[in-house]
Amino acid sequence: MINQFSLEERLEKLGLRLPALSKPAGNYVVVNVRGNIAYVAIQFPKFNEEMLYKGVLGKDLTTEDGYKAMQLCAINVLAHIDAAIGLDKVAGLNHVDAYYRATADWMEAPKLVDGASDLFVNILGERGVHSRAIFGVDHLSRNFSVGITCTWTIYA
Amino acid sequence: MINQFSLEERLEKLGLRLPALSKPAGNYVVVNVRGNIAYVAIQFPKFNEEMLYKGVLGKDLTTEDGYKAMQLCAINVLAHIDAAIGLDKVAGLNHVDAYYRATADWMEAPKLVDGASDLFVNILGERGVHSRAIFGVDHLSRNFSVGITCTWTIYA
Amino acid sequence: MINQFSLEERLEKLGLRLPALSKPAGNYVVVNVRGNIAYVAIQFPKFNEEMLYKGVLGKDLTTEDGYKAMQLCAINVLAHIDAAIGLDKVAGLNHVDAYYRATADWMEAPKLVDGASDLFVNILGERGVHSRAIFGVDHLSRNFSVGITCTWTIYA
Repeated sequence: MINQFSLEERLEKLGLRLPALSKPAGNYVVVNVRGNIAYVAIQFPKFNEEMLYKGVLGKDLTTEDGYKAMQLCAINVLAHIDAAIGLDKVAGLNHVDAYYRATADWMEAPKLVDGASDLFVNILGERGVHSRAIFGVDHLSRNFSVGITCTWTIYA
Repeated sequence: MINQFSLEERLEKLGLRLPALSKPAGNYVVVNVRGNIAYVAIQFPKFNEEMLYKGVLGKDLTTEDGYKAMQLCAINVLAHIDAAIGLDKVAGLNHVDAYYRATADWMEAPKLVDGASDLFVNILGERGVHSRAIFGVDHLSRNFSVGITCTWTIYA
Repeated sequence: MINQFSLEERLEKLGLRLPALSKPAGNYVVVNVRGNIAYVAIQFPKFNEEMLYKGVLGKDLTTEDGYKAMQLCAINVLAHIDAAIGLDKVAGLNHVDAYYRATADWMEAPKLVDGASDLFVNILGERGVHSRAIFGVDHLSRNFSVGITCTWTIYA
C-alpha cells in the first residue's frame, strides 16, 4: 500500500490539473462498491462542469485531441476513485471499456485510448495496469467524442 | 437480508406486471453465477415472448417510450435474478451497461436509462443502487431500440 | 479441476489450430488478473499476426464467415488464458461481450456469436458456460468485422 498518495501532486508532475468531481446525470452513482470491486460509471472529457472534446474523430478532432480527451476521462475516473475510496486503498485497475465516435476511415483507436492507458500506468504503476476493449459507437451523451468505463479491485 | 421478498407484489404496487422468463436465443445462459457474482445476459424490452419497443429513438419512439422500454428490460433482469438466485440472496446490483439506437440529433440518453435505474432503486432500495454506462449502438438483435446488461453481487 | 489439459489437442479434435499469442497494440495487457478474476482484452479474428475476417456482415462476409470469425476470437481468448494462467486453473468463463459490424438489414447476430459460445462450451464443458451481450458497433480496430471481450473466474 502507498501512503500519503496525493493525486493532485502526481498530476501536477505530469503538467495536469485535478478537476472537481463530475455529478451523475441520472439515478445512479459514479462509484459503486460491492464486495471487493469498485464499479465506475462512464466518464467523459469534462473539466469541472465544462464539456470538452465534443464531436467526431477524423472530422472535428485529431488523434492528438482524442488522446487528451481520453486522458481527461482517466483523470475524472481517478478523481472519483480517490474521493470515494482513496487511491491508497485500491489493489489495482481491472479493465477499461473505451468508446469513441469517428469517421468511417479514421483508424487510430489504439493510439487514442493510450491517452487513458498511459495516464493510469503513469500515475499508479503496476496498480494501473489493465486490460481493455475499444469500439466505435454511434452516440455518446452530450455529443462527446469519447468516454470510458472501468472497474477496480480494492484491498480486502 | 429481506425475507419473503415478492417481486410480483412489488411490481404490482408500481402498476407493473411480471413477465414470463425470456429464453436464451443461443448457446448461453441468462444468469451465470461464478464466485459471488451473477452475470446477466443482455435483456431486451420483451413481455412474455412479445418483442416490444422496436425501432429508433427520435424517429419511431419517443423518450417516454424509451423510458418504458428500459423499465421493461430491468423487469426482465429482476425476473431472471429472482428465478435463478432469489432476490433475497443478492447483496446488490453492481453496474448496468445500457445500449440504445437513436437518430443523430436525439440527446435524451440519461432520461431514457433512468427507466431502468429508477426501477432497480424503487424495487430494491440501496441494493438497487448501481453505476452505469450508456452508449448508442448501430444494431440490436431483432431491431430492438434498447437493451441492458448487468452484474450483481451475491451474499457469500 | 482437469489435469493435463491440452488446449492444442482439444482444438485439433475439432479440426482447429492453435495460433501464436497476439500482441497488445497499446499500453495494456491481454490478461489482467486481480483477485480471483481474469480480465481479457478485446480479441479479434487474428491467426498468428494475420488479420482475418475484415469488413461488414451482410456485405463483405456471410453469417457462416462471421461464425468462424467469432470462433477464432474465442480461440485467441483461450490461447491467452492458457498461456497466462493455465486452463486447469480457471473455475469458469463469466461473461462475453460480443461486437460486430453489419449492414442495416442483417439480423443474424445470435447465430454469429454462437461461433464463440459453441467453442467455449465444446472445449471447457460446464466451465465454458457463460452469459453474453451482443451489439452492433460503428467501428472496430483495423476494420475487423467482429471482436469479443470476456472475464473468467479463477480457483481461489
